[in-house]
Amino acid sequence: MTAIDFAAFVDELAAVSGEAILPFFRTALSVENKSRGHGFDPVTAADRAAESAMRTLIRRSFPEHGIVGEEFGDERPDAEYVWMLDPIDGTKSFICGMPAWGTLIGLTRFGAPVFGMMHQPFTRERFSGDGGAAQYRGPAGDRALQVRPCAALADAVLFTTSPMLMSAKDRRAFAKIEDTVRLSRYGGDCYAYCMLAAGHIDLVIETGLQAHDVVPLIPIIAGAGGIVTTWDGGSPEAGGSVVAAGDKRAHAAVLAMLAG
Amino acid sequence: MTAIDFAAFVDELAAVSGEAILPFFRTALSVENKSRGHGFDPVTAADRAAESAMRTLIRRSFPEHGIVGEEFGDERPDAEYVWMLDPIDGTKSFICGMPAWGTLIGLTRFGAPVFGMMHQPFTRERFSGDGGAAQYRGPAGDRALQVRPCAALADAVLFTTSPMLMSAKDRRAFAKIEDTVRLSRYGGDCYAYCMLAAGHIDLVIETGLQAHDVVPLIPIIAGAGGIVTTWDGGSPEAGGSVVAAGDKRAHAAVLAMLAG
Repeated sequence: MTAIDFAAFVDELAAVSGEAILPFFRTALSVENKSRGHGFDPVTAADRAAESAMRTLIRRSFPEHGIVGEEFGDERPDAEYVWMLDPIDGTKSFICGMPAWGTLIGLTRFGAPVFGMMHQPFTRERFSGDGGAAQYRGPAGDRALQVRPCAALADAVLFTTSPMLMSAKDRRAFAKIEDTVRLSRYGGDCYAYCMLAAGHIDLVIETGLQAHDVVPLIPIIAGAGGIVTTWDGGSPEAGGSVVAAGDKRAHAAVLAMLAG
Repeated sequence: MTAIDFAAFVDELAAVSGEAILPFFRTALSVENKSRGHGFDPVTAADRAAESAMRTLIRRSFPEHGIVGEEFGDERPDAEYVWMLDPIDGTKSFICGMPAWGTLIGLTRFGAPVFGMMHQPFTRERFSGDGGAAQYRGPAGDRALQVRPCAALADAVLFTTSPMLMSAKDRRAFAKIEDTVRLSRYGGDCYAYCMLAAGHIDLVIETGLQAHDVVPLIPIIAGAGGIVTTWDGGSPEAGGSVVAAGDKRAHAAVLAMLAG
């Protein structure tokens, strides 16, 4: 069984997750309501509802598979196939009503990412990939995802969620790159990696990522012809400090500056 | 003839503008193509196509009205009714493929804003208002726009496009407020003001705005129950440094900190 067999199942996961999340996005339910008791957090409620729905569907369809999620810990993390779930990546955008958040669904086999999806249920967009190819589906149509060339950092458009999430040392290294690129923007979360896969931006540089933040994006970026590694050029599957680039030349230039 | 009579016409303007812009958003046309000649700028091309289409429709329907736009200068700016047009507010989001941009259409009568719309043609959302009421229309339905209460800055969610657009002095004043609020986010442009009108965020603080950046938003914010002034509490119609708030108490607290 190859990864491509899971594509239809991932669409089902995205559908149940979106149905669980949307009642909490931009609705009265999303307003922090003190009458619900101290500490009611609508993002956590949406996150948990979506992850529960996906876990139920995975257990019913593939009881031998493992599951690693943000909200409910690990089940069989050493299984051949393991699902990595992050129902709302970009929670700060979510609570502000902005669309730059998404549901991340990844599948690993023997530890290697083999399929990934970013689903934005509000805009009804799905970005998916298997490492060899990547696809966009949205209200205005479907198309293959393809990175764009970017030979020099001076031409690059860069995203990071926020430099304030970085350590002081990492922030200094990031600032050198930020001073070199054509345009630097903040706040994209998973949406920024998908814009990189779609050829609209050139670089995403972040720190402190969890495995479930990045594993679902790896097969999308690779499938679109891009590259993603840790800051020191290693495998990004465990998260941490990550550089994604559409063009290997821009990626090499960033790694050289981070090492310098 | 009252402002409300123009609502259907503004929908027509939004439609022709969206049709002119969307071919340039996330398409091959949006990629800077050196073969088109030095300096081809897809955002400017989309901006001009949309503003031309709107100007043609206004001239044909209301030849006595004035028009003030970002791309083509002023026509009859002293007319009783003047249209203020900004086809792509949030050009940096636009070129990155992110949805946080919109088309701003405002109408003034004797210099006072009487109707405004923010149209996001990609997400098919329209935020409109006449100062007395404000409305949201989107794929998932229509509803009245209503700000949320926010009694204290410590509870506030704040947006600004970027502190780097501010002077050093303004940035220091802004940083004091940023240190006080619950959450500060960058990059929203016109979309942030609409999230304020919809009750998802509490404050937008910016500098260096043009009249066409803010006039179309004033009737939406006021219609949703919010307030927008200059940093020193004056009328915001001319642009400049602006504070928008959903709650008058948060607005007063910001003005006190900016003056202090």
